[in-house]
Amino acid sequence: MDDFFRQTLLYDFYGELLTSHQKEIYEQFVLEDLSLSEIAASAGISRQGVHDLVKRCSHTLQGYEDKLHLVEKFLAIREKVKEIDRELDRQETRENREMIEGIRRISRDILEEL
Amino acid sequence: MDDFFRQTLLYDFYGELLTSHQKEIYEQFVLEDLSLSEIAASAGISRQGVHDLVKRCSHTLQGYEDKLHLVEKFLAIREKVKEIDRELDRQETRENREMIEGIRRISRDILEEL
Repeated sequence: MDDFFRQTLLYDFYGELLTSHQKEIYEQFVLEDLSLSEIAASAGISRQGVHDLVKRCSHTLQGYEDKLHLVEKFLAIREKVKEIDRELDRQETRENREMIEGIRRISRDILEEL
Repeated sequence: MDDFFRQTLLYDFYGELLTSHQKEIYEQFVLEDLSLSEIAASAGISRQGVHDLVKRCSHTLQGYEDKLHLVEKFLAIREKVKEIDRELDRQETRENREMIEGIRRISRDILEEL
C-alpha cells in the first residue's frame, strides 16, 4: 500500500480524533498536497511548526491503528467483497443473471459502506 | 439493540483505547457481570469509585463512537452480508449449489472479520 493511500485511510478512520487545528493543517498537507511553506504562511506558524504538527498527527493516527486495527480489518473485508464480485462475474450466465445481479447489488452496497 | 450488546460492541471496538486499569474494571462489570461490591472488594477501591469509573468508561467509549461511528458502520455491513446469505438461501437449487456455496464461504469469511 503506498504511503499516500495509507495516510488517507488512517485519516478517514481516525481523523475525527484529532483537534480541529490539527485536522486543518494535516488535510492541507496530506489531502490537498500543499507545501510546508504554503501551509506555514497561511496558518501563521513556522515551517518547522507545520512539519512537527504533521509528524505528530501521523504518529497519533498510527497509534490508533496499532491499538484498534480498523484500517487493516476494513481492507480485509473490502478484499473479500471484491472476491465475491469476481466470483459472481465468473459464474454469470444468461440463466442466472437476475440472481447474480441481486447479490452483486448487495455486495456493492457493502463496498460503499467501507 | 439492547444495552448489554451495545456496551459489548463499543468495548470490542474502542476498548483498547482505555487504560489497563479501566479495562480490567470495565470488563469485570460489563462482560463478567460482577457486582460493584465484588469488584470494589477485589480492586481495593470504593463501590462508588467502581461505579464512577464504569460510568466514565462508558462515556469515553460512546465518545469515540460519536466521532468515528465504527460500530454503526460495522452493524450496517453485517446486515448486508446477512442479506447476501439470505439471498443465497433463496436462490439455491440442485444445479447451482456449488456456485452458491463458493459465494457463501466468502460471505461467512466477512462475517468472521466483523
